[in-house]
Amino acid sequence: MKPSARAFDINRRLFLSTAALLPMPALLRATSALAKDAGSQLASWNDGPAKQAIIDFARTTTDRSSPTFVPPQERIAVFDQDGTLWVEHPMYTFVTYCFERVPVLVKAKPGLKDVEPFKTVLSGNREEMAKLTTPELEKILAATLTGMTVEEFKVETTKWLETARHPRWNRPYTELVYQPMLEVLRFLRANDYKTYIVTGAGQDFARMGSEKVYGIPPEQVVGTASATKYEYDKDGRPTLLKEPKLMLFDDFAGKAEGIHLMIGRRPYAAFGNSTGDQQMLEYTHAGDGARLMMLVLHDDAQREYAYGPAQDLADTKVGTFTQALYDEAKKDGWTVVSMKNDWKRIFAFEQ
Amino acid sequence: MKPSARAFDINRRLFLSTAALLPMPALLRATSALAKDAGSQLASWNDGPAKQAIIDFARTTTDRSSPTFVPPQERIAVFDQDGTLWVEHPMYTFVTYCFERVPVLVKAKPGLKDVEPFKTVLSGNREEMAKLTTPELEKILAATLTGMTVEEFKVETTKWLETARHPRWNRPYTELVYQPMLEVLRFLRANDYKTYIVTGAGQDFARMGSEKVYGIPPEQVVGTASATKYEYDKDGRPTLLKEPKLMLFDDFAGKAEGIHLMIGRRPYAAFGNSTGDQQMLEYTHAGDGARLMMLVLHDDAQREYAYGPAQDLADTKVGTFTQALYDEAKKDGWTVVSMKNDWKRIFAFEQ
Repeated sequence: MKPSARAFDINRRLFLSTAALLPMPALLRATSALAKDAGSQLASWNDGPAKQAIIDFARTTTDRSSPTFVPPQERIAVFDQDGTLWVEHPMYTFVTYCFERVPVLVKAKPGLKDVEPFKTVLSGNREEMAKLTTPELEKILAATLTGMTVEEFKVETTKWLETARHPRWNRPYTELVYQPMLEVLRFLRANDYKTYIVTGAGQDFARMGSEKVYGIPPEQVVGTASATKYEYDKDGRPTLLKEPKLMLFDDFAGKAEGIHLMIGRRPYAAFGNSTGDQQMLEYTHAGDGARLMMLVLHDDAQREYAYGPAQDLADTKVGTFTQALYDEAKKDGWTVVSMKNDWKRIFAFEQ
Repeated sequence: MKPSARAFDINRRLFLSTAALLPMPALLRATSALAKDAGSQLASWNDGPAKQAIIDFARTTTDRSSPTFVPPQERIAVFDQDGTLWVEHPMYTFVTYCFERVPVLVKAKPGLKDVEPFKTVLSGNREEMAKLTTPELEKILAATLTGMTVEEFKVETTKWLETARHPRWNRPYTELVYQPMLEVLRFLRANDYKTYIVTGAGQDFARMGSEKVYGIPPEQVVGTASATKYEYDKDGRPTLLKEPKLMLFDDFAGKAEGIHLMIGRRPYAAFGNSTGDQQMLEYTHAGDGARLMMLVLHDDAQREYAYGPAQDLADTKVGTFTQALYDEAKKDGWTVVSMKNDWKRIFAFEQ
């Protein structure tokens, strides 16, 4: 199914910094050690401009003798999740979760089974589901993501992530993460970058498993966030109830705004794959010194999917990586990563 | 001056975790080394139950053989700022900044000089200023904290923090931080705790200097936050404009809600000094295992101030540390820190 763009603009959207202290010959050795080391750390990347841009960025921002050296505490790198760190087709994982929660919801509230849009979701008719309007989709998100405590939500999503399977690979969604991007995350962290997920998906959902899957702790996950309400349960124990009240819409301009709210610093590196990431990349790019902006292009129908500009750059409806975004990337020197050409393998399970 | 309670409930309110890996006799040595080491790390604390509670908490949550051991990545400690980490009298520093910005604001918009509440603030008449209503105070906050880019705000506040002086000590506000609390921050970090400020004050304001003063980076400061708006300036450069639209009211229940939004984990330790911190302490306390809840009692009129329960526990108007809060602390085993008795010195400049 292809949910409407509007609605799913919820659904898309070491190096040796001490080297400078070493005498010059040692520095030269250290630098080439970085290059060699980076090569093995980025083992799933083919040699080429994308891999080189990552290595160059790390070198120029961590070498104390570099004019674009960045102090370790300021090293922030942000990553979109859907389509950048893991598979987003045929539907954002986050939205899949909401759809798959509907039967559970209807069990608790049987009256809903004859009420739209729940009725359509229960029918399992994908063609009909694809026709759901934005307000209908929002109703499903609100009904499945709010009304429970944050602890209850954690239990539900953790269980779902362990049991749900992607229809194409029949594997848990958490295995459908891009191995080359896991290597970038680790490589940047080895260079003292703090790595953040900045996603249009629900923040509480995206936080589940982020530590295990990406090595990114929950406090470094920025997402679309609804309010919570502090309450006392019947035993007088404080709880936080998830409420259907939007606090942060973390997509498009909201990603730059969310970064300011949650991090308070401008990132030095930003990775995305769609128009929902455009402002985050622009905001990163507008900073001084060396910055790294990367867009993942889905052009590998065989190993993953091909959509967006890989099909037809002029057709803005096939994907959210539009011609305008592609042009902006080329004009501003952002790096476009070809999954087909830049990545030796897509998933860790492809040995 | 004493602003109304409502408004200023904006104004108020190592160890060796590897020890377990050592053979037993070495562990015993390491444990007593902790106690000795903690003593020197908490040098401004007198021996007593408060100091002991901090040391015991660190030991029991970092000793791998302890039933209440906490994995390093889950070690979160939250600190209120005003009255807990630095002086909050005669007025919250954050509000003082807003008042002192009014002349600058009026210079840019001369029409405001005859308009209330700006006229009263310009008069400098403290008695009249003390009578400003909550909506009038909110007008001043909105006018002085929004309408500029986040970069402009950073420049303004950084300059102010360097030049403004506290009326009593004639020192920068950033020197009026409590030395014993700086030691607690460092001690907990040495025990792999991530330390956060969770303040009712403006988040962007509280982030200024947090790294230099407390060793707490901006991304670990949670505060009352207004929205920003992503825009392009006349040169097409992206900027974030601070808007007069409240996103997160980070006080009272909002502190627990803000912690979930910004951190996503329940803290293991929480420090406060007023009713605005009550829910944050309750939320911390409600977690499993060992938790540390502390309230700073201002009972030292000579070296700092005495207010709240130190004057009259039954009078809820003199301070925001109410009788009810005091009773809850005693009932639930939270530690009340007496500035007079528990702290050898208050400020670093008192050698």
